[in-house]
Amino acid sequence: MRQSHLFTKTRREAPKDEVAKNAQLLIRAGYIHKEMAGAYSFLPLGLRVRDNIIRVIREEINAIGGQEIKMTALQSPALWKKSGRWEDGAIDVWFKTQLKDGGELGLATTHEEPLTSLLTEYIQSYKDLPKYVYQFQLKFRNELRAKSGIMRCREFVMKDLYSFNRTEEEFREFYEKCAEAYKKIFARVGIGEKTHRVFASGGSFSKFSDEFQTICDAGEDIIYVHKEKNIAVNKEVYTDEVLKDLGVSKDEFEEKKAIEVGNIFPLGTKYSEALGLTYKDEKGVDTPVIMGSYGIGPGRVMGTVVELLSDAKGIVWPKEIAPFAVHLVSITGGNQDVVAEADRLYELLRENGIEVLYDDRDARAGEKFADSDLIGIPTRLVVSEKSMSQGSIECTARVDGTTTMIGDSDIVARLSK
Amino acid sequence: MRQSHLFTKTRREAPKDEVAKNAQLLIRAGYIHKEMAGAYSFLPLGLRVRDNIIRVIREEINAIGGQEIKMTALQSPALWKKSGRWEDGAIDVWFKTQLKDGGELGLATTHEEPLTSLLTEYIQSYKDLPKYVYQFQLKFRNELRAKSGIMRCREFVMKDLYSFNRTEEEFREFYEKCAEAYKKIFARVGIGEKTHRVFASGGSFSKFSDEFQTICDAGEDIIYVHKEKNIAVNKEVYTDEVLKDLGVSKDEFEEKKAIEVGNIFPLGTKYSEALGLTYKDEKGVDTPVIMGSYGIGPGRVMGTVVELLSDAKGIVWPKEIAPFAVHLVSITGGNQDVVAEADRLYELLRENGIEVLYDDRDARAGEKFADSDLIGIPTRLVVSEKSMSQGSIECTARVDGTTTMIGDSDIVARLSK
Repeated sequence: MRQSHLFTKTRREAPKDEVAKNAQLLIRAGYIHKEMAGAYSFLPLGLRVRDNIIRVIREEINAIGGQEIKMTALQSPALWKKSGRWEDGAIDVWFKTQLKDGGELGLATTHEEPLTSLLTEYIQSYKDLPKYVYQFQLKFRNELRAKSGIMRCREFVMKDLYSFNRTEEEFREFYEKCAEAYKKIFARVGIGEKTHRVFASGGSFSKFSDEFQTICDAGEDIIYVHKEKNIAVNKEVYTDEVLKDLGVSKDEFEEKKAIEVGNIFPLGTKYSEALGLTYKDEKGVDTPVIMGSYGIGPGRVMGTVVELLSDAKGIVWPKEIAPFAVHLVSITGGNQDVVAEADRLYELLRENGIEVLYDDRDARAGEKFADSDLIGIPTRLVVSEKSMSQGSIECTARVDGTTTMIGDSDIVARLSK
Repeated sequence: MRQSHLFTKTRREAPKDEVAKNAQLLIRAGYIHKEMAGAYSFLPLGLRVRDNIIRVIREEINAIGGQEIKMTALQSPALWKKSGRWEDGAIDVWFKTQLKDGGELGLATTHEEPLTSLLTEYIQSYKDLPKYVYQFQLKFRNELRAKSGIMRCREFVMKDLYSFNRTEEEFREFYEKCAEAYKKIFARVGIGEKTHRVFASGGSFSKFSDEFQTICDAGEDIIYVHKEKNIAVNKEVYTDEVLKDLGVSKDEFEEKKAIEVGNIFPLGTKYSEALGLTYKDEKGVDTPVIMGSYGIGPGRVMGTVVELLSDAKGIVWPKEIAPFAVHLVSITGGNQDVVAEADRLYELLRENGIEVLYDDRDARAGEKFADSDLIGIPTRLVVSEKSMSQGSIECTARVDGTTTMIGDSDIVARLSK
């Protein structure tokens, strides 16, 4: 894409009311736009990043047998009354609305109830199980405070996966498989090393659930990370009793701030019993389905990457989720030969399937470099009179600023890696 | 995908409360699920079809210079009060909701106001124009009646594109370009021959807008189609005065029912003036931007295809939007050699990038064929003892039932076309 074609521009200052670093940088670089506290529009560059994160999640969830659907955001109270979650006492972040012809509706905060109900139409026998169903769908949460940029929103896309199993053993097997898929996802999007699987409260269904927490000072959660063993515990279950269960003691842990980037949660038979999702087992006995839920917010992951990996100059995107692989910058000084050379290189890269943002704007070199650092595409190629006189192209890695000169004939091979 | 893995199943009967043919067939075949009147979830097969329609639209809109974004569904009243569209008198299908800490919000029925406001941050000079921005985003419309299946919903995805131009001439040029893109889109999704560009009311901005109407008895609109010339007129502007303008007379037209599958609409400077979207022209004079809007509902297109192209046996998907290219059906009669041969063929097709739904279920041949007809994938391949004894595979076109036998060595080449 030519940058002159892009409708967004970078800006020097972040909006004054924006306190979160992720939102400040993403707004300054033209990735997102704040519609109101906790509600952000995704602009061309931002949508590309979020879609890349979604693609990574989709690939890994499909690989463990997930089937993708898309449910509605409008929800009927009847199903939620069956599970006892319609009232604000049970879910305190409901947005509700009314039909013109009367009748209240809810805006999805989550989808256990409607999906469980939907599956009653398709699950009859043990032969119909197990099944794993997921979606990327809008959630609405009526948060009182929404000051963490795109990490805690009133409206956001969530990947929510639900498992439907026959036995606890079958469920636990999938649960661990999903935990492995989550590790792959967080590694691919660039936060694997800082992300821990953390013991957290299991609610009423199970002793524990598991959270995936990324250590980061911008986090709203407190976790305790074992100094040597691969164990981490959320503050909410960091009790003597739990530590004794795990065979560890408090002096072995360090306190850290962290961002919850994912969770996996045993649901037991709470929703299947409330909504009537049963199957006939091999003996013909009606048995409630054992469920689990598994969430990742692609927007929150995007915000976490910005919080964690940006530097003083701007954002630093990992390759897998960057909006473009290459930022091609022309420094022409009005020289039409340089323009022609940069145009040629742009076409060459595109023809070879390399995604390029081409800064073809008539602007000063300093401004172009500052914008390029702020936008944070992994590889920058600079075409200028100087590079042309050397018969090569200047190639700079955003992550560490290392610059190499690459011969024209090598460029496609180098970037296709 | 193996059909045994799919959680949906076909059903013999449509739900009794469902009167629209598109919803009846799509529910029976397992494409969609009704959450409430006018709100449907898209199940694995349905989501694939809708995503294919979205892909076609995206390709054609990108080709005319569109930049994709994603705005929020939650909308702040302030912007809508500026344009005078916050009250139900102006937009009678608002869903509204409340923030926990007070303050009313709207659920997007459309996005002119927030997008126009957003662009004020990026458009300053004539050099920043023209720009074309679009999204696929949820719209919510509080319809009193919602009985047309997925063709008129209370919640649906819409492709809405907005144009931002400097002059009427520049705007009209893009308007015609978009009309051409729409023709390509409707041709690619399989309804091109039945779809007319239709003169419709221009509202307060222009004498006419243009609708794209597909002739179909399930349509809610009445249009008049010229018997010889390529002219069609919506009932709302089918007046003597308009016909005189167009140089035609009433006896040259036929009345038809039609479905509005798309529209393109001049907005003039209504929203740019209300929201302050101006640019400095070459003389430095502040000038309001000339706007247009361009809508297509992928779900409505999907419903229209079903209404128009299905037959007594079920749905008939055009190739470009079918959930899979091939429906591979094994008729094993318990013969494990047939199972192995069908498995082999499934892997062969997948390795060659051909998308296959593989009916590997242990079911009777009659049931499998009936399901396959109902689901409506363009090409059916049957592997059975009979086909194996002939050393070939039975290949049936869903559209006309023609069957040919194809040698194993030809199969990939034939299906890759």
